Amino acid sequence: MTRHTPLGGGAEFDGIRAVWARLGARAAPAGDDCAFVPWAGTLLAISTDLSVEGTHFRAGWLPPRELGWRIAAAALSDLAAVAATPVGVMASVGVPEVAPDELLADVMEGIGAASAEVGATVVGGDLVRADLLVVDMTVFGGVERPVRRSGAAAGDGLWVTGALGAPAAAIRAWEAGREPRAASRERFAHPVPRVAAAQWLRDAGATAMIDLSDGILADAGHLAAASGVACRIESERVPVHAGADDRRDALAGGEEYELLAALPATFSERDAVVLARECGVPLTQVGVVEQGAGVVLVEGGRPVELPGGFRHFGGP
Amino acid sequence: MTRHTPLGGGAEFDGIRAVWARLGARAAPAGDDCAFVPWAGTLLAISTDLSVEGTHFRAGWLPPRELGWRIAAAALSDLAAVAATPVGVMASVGVPEVAPDELLADVMEGIGAASAEVGATVVGGDLVRADLLVVDMTVFGGVERPVRRSGAAAGDGLWVTGALGAPAAAIRAWEAGREPRAASRERFAHPVPRVAAAQWLRDAGATAMIDLSDGILADAGHLAAASGVACRIESERVPVHAGADDRRDALAGGEEYELLAALPATFSERDAVVLARECGVPLTQVGVVEQGAGVVLVEGGRPVELPGGFRHFGGP
Repeated sequence: MTRHTPLGGGAEFDGIRAVWARLGARAAPAGDDCAFVPWAGTLLAISTDLSVEGTHFRAGWLPPRELGWRIAAAALSDLAAVAATPVGVMASVGVPEVAPDELLADVMEGIGAASAEVGATVVGGDLVRADLLVVDMTVFGGVERPVRRSGAAAGDGLWVTGALGAPAAAIRAWEAGREPRAASRERFAHPVPRVAAAQWLRDAGATAMIDLSDGILADAGHLAAASGVACRIESERVPVHAGADDRRDALAGGEEYELLAALPATFSERDAVVLARECGVPLTQVGVVEQGAGVVLVEGGRPVELPGGFRHFGGP
Repeated sequence: MTRHTPLGGGAEFDGIRAVWARLGARAAPAGDDCAFVPWAGTLLAISTDLSVEGTHFRAGWLPPRELGWRIAAAALSDLAAVAATPVGVMASVGVPEVAPDELLADVMEGIGAASAEVGATVVGGDLVRADLLVVDMTVFGGVERPVRRSGAAAGDGLWVTGALGAPAAAIRAWEAGREPRAASRERFAHPVPRVAAAQWLRDAGATAMIDLSDGILADAGHLAAASGVACRIESERVPVHAGADDRRDALAGGEEYELLAALPATFSERDAVVLARECGVPLTQVGVVEQGAGVVLVEGGRPVELPGGFRHFGGP
């Protein structure tokens, strides 16, 4: 569940959060990547992600099967972010009348493949005509002990899975009319929800977690706000993917499906090596949780201004 | 869950069902208004409905709050159709940049009101920019003993709740540039999912059930196909709403959220009176289930041809 818009940090959409206030008691409290619903002694985690041509992707960037994979993986990442186990997927797809028959079948095949990758089944959906390609994914799963955004405490370390910045570089290339480098393109086309790593991190004592769909600085800001703390991030420590054009892509670029986790100070580099071996993804300490508010970005030992002007497609 | 398109009975979308076949073991079997997921000893019923401006509604037909009500009620009707108890609603909304701020708030308020009407809570959603107004509703609830489409047997009676045809008349008026009559408009704008009636019908022994989103003849066809029987419907018995232009609206018009139920032959008019008193909706026998296939429409005691050329917006 993203109750913020993915359109960026501008003021234009700020009023939207107020909508939920108007719903009052008819709406559950917001704040995490998923909603949690008590169910027969268990907790159901459920999340929905709406992707619309022109806003979230452009025709021609990815073939339909990869598009389906990417959209499903992005939705499933919301389950990973709270340490839930994916169970089922509902896929609503609107397809233009002029689209070839294979478009829908290929999109659905990508959705099915990404779901199967994390053990989830496509249980239903809706198929309609639309003047734009529209895909809404609702994903749900079980979660014994969810890791929320709100549990980080001063003194925790901040750790990130994987390496960042490649999706932003891919988008920049497409927007400039170029084909992205293979390393950039692959990361954009084929994200893998960090389901196993998330559960490992929960078991290791993670106090708060979030996925990086808005980029590490923006999402660290969400985690800081939810936890009532500050996130201090050392720019030089943020792992930059070989597919990124520069460090700024790793800091400001979104459309990532890695995890940012707050872990107790006792969590060590040695623990991170175990995670890497068991879950197949590196884990890097990028900063610490402090008293205060917001995100403090440090370069060369000094706080610097945050890169401004986040735009939707992830690149500055 | 509607795995068929709401665009009508034409051949153009027939290939779509084949998509699910390609998903193979990664997709659950289709066929009912909802998908059913075993969960902690219970059964979770879940359904999704995608509504897109231009395909499912046109700007200006309804103010946003009524649009939100209608879209949510239509989705919740899929839970009613299997005798499930609604619990939660996820609302994904795409809004054009040029839309006034109140549009989203008003749509969400309508969604919240329709959900509260049947005891469900808006637990989450997604809010994005889109070049068209797009609303995807995922609804879920618990169901002890679902009534499926597939249980009807020869000898059962076919009964329908409420009275039909008003939505088709409302759409015809709007498409002709007229404001609909109040009785037509109200039925289009303010459908009420038949949650209580459905559970009453289940307890009364309903063998199969479906809602009438595609219209009584089309949906009787779906029920007949799923049950491996024929549905014989007597035209003169189909209750015509005061907001319908003529009987044809009640037979061929869709966008209805009443229920068609197959009930044992022992179910009587006296039982229907009890339902009407307890659930506040009339129940009328419109035909019987027979051996065979498809829908047999009878007028003046003789089988007649089905009205052809269903179109999306519900009117012929």
